[in-house]
Amino acid sequence: MGRTSDAREKILSAAQSLIELRGYSALGVAEICKTAGVPKGSFYYFFESKESLALTVVDAHWADQKRAWTAVLKDDAEPLHRLRRLFEETEAVQHAGRQSCGTVSGCLFGNLTLELSNRTEAIRTRLQEIFDEQVEMVGEVIAEALERREVGVADTREAARAVVAQLEGQVLFAKLYNSPHRLSPLWANCLALLGADAPRETVAGA
Amino acid sequence: MGRTSDAREKILSAAQSLIELRGYSALGVAEICKTAGVPKGSFYYFFESKESLALTVVDAHWADQKRAWTAVLKDDAEPLHRLRRLFEETEAVQHAGRQSCGTVSGCLFGNLTLELSNRTEAIRTRLQEIFDEQVEMVGEVIAEALERREVGVADTREAARAVVAQLEGQVLFAKLYNSPHRLSPLWANCLALLGADAPRETVAGA
Repeated sequence: MGRTSDAREKILSAAQSLIELRGYSALGVAEICKTAGVPKGSFYYFFESKESLALTVVDAHWADQKRAWTAVLKDDAEPLHRLRRLFEETEAVQHAGRQSCGTVSGCLFGNLTLELSNRTEAIRTRLQEIFDEQVEMVGEVIAEALERREVGVADTREAARAVVAQLEGQVLFAKLYNSPHRLSPLWANCLALLGADAPRETVAGA
Repeated sequence: MGRTSDAREKILSAAQSLIELRGYSALGVAEICKTAGVPKGSFYYFFESKESLALTVVDAHWADQKRAWTAVLKDDAEPLHRLRRLFEETEAVQHAGRQSCGTVSGCLFGNLTLELSNRTEAIRTRLQEIFDEQVEMVGEVIAEALERREVGVADTREAARAVVAQLEGQVLFAKLYNSPHRLSPLWANCLALLGADAPRETVAGA
């Protein structure tokens, strides 16, 4: 066993890959430790339970994804351009995942929502907070677009929910059909949901 | 143990409730039989494996849901009216589920897609066929609406995918927040995705 901090990182990294590929319930602590290459005894030194490991995986994944979303959505490009980049990057992430492990693993948060939200309140609450943050980030960009009269929505928060729901629904299909190309219509669907015409400079790049 | 056919039905019914509430991986055959009130030995008389039981549950659930979707979507009401009823009935089903067991269990097919599609090809294939059928049924109604110039879509199949994806995404949120009311914006979002104005008679009833 390497340094203490290494072992924790190895467990986290193994757990994230395994949960993304196979879900939470199908995994055991022994398998996570075997994949991580650390003795099983060290697991309980770092984590109270499998659930607390899952919460740590969720937090770490959101920290990474939030950094990526912030880089795109708080950029100084035009608002609709930023939304389009969010979808393009989502598609690129699923493409990369498929290339590295052969399968589209989808959205970790969506996967755990459908698998676990009715079974552990701690995970449900954390996932609610994450989706609330996603909706807020998207809603802020929609509000900017609304100010510029580039979209026609009555309620920016409801519109943001519709956009994130569309994202989750299409990611579900991308996983089911093991095809990241299923995400290509996201941009057109987002424009429709926002009552927007494609902005000129964006269409030119299409 | 009752009549043979009773035991099989009891296992199926217990498995459907348990899978809806807790997913597939977290369940064992022993628990399913205990809930069904049948001896464990009888399980393997009817089903080869837990996977073959899951496929039977999926088929039975789709047979029921397809009957309900057909009654609504192949009705002789106006096309957009039929789509609206589909969303209203989906919301009603989730309300009823929440009242009977305290939680929104979401869409069995969406749940199993995110939990299992990367793990068993037989279930992945069956779920693909079911979502293909759903998209086809919705697409036929959109094509009728297009003929009446009530919607403005370039590709009815792609539009149907967007509508079913929106449905799955919002059902995911309804489950996460344990709130069937999350499904209320489905109709407005569907109209936006289809580039449609709310038809007059439908607005009057809102």
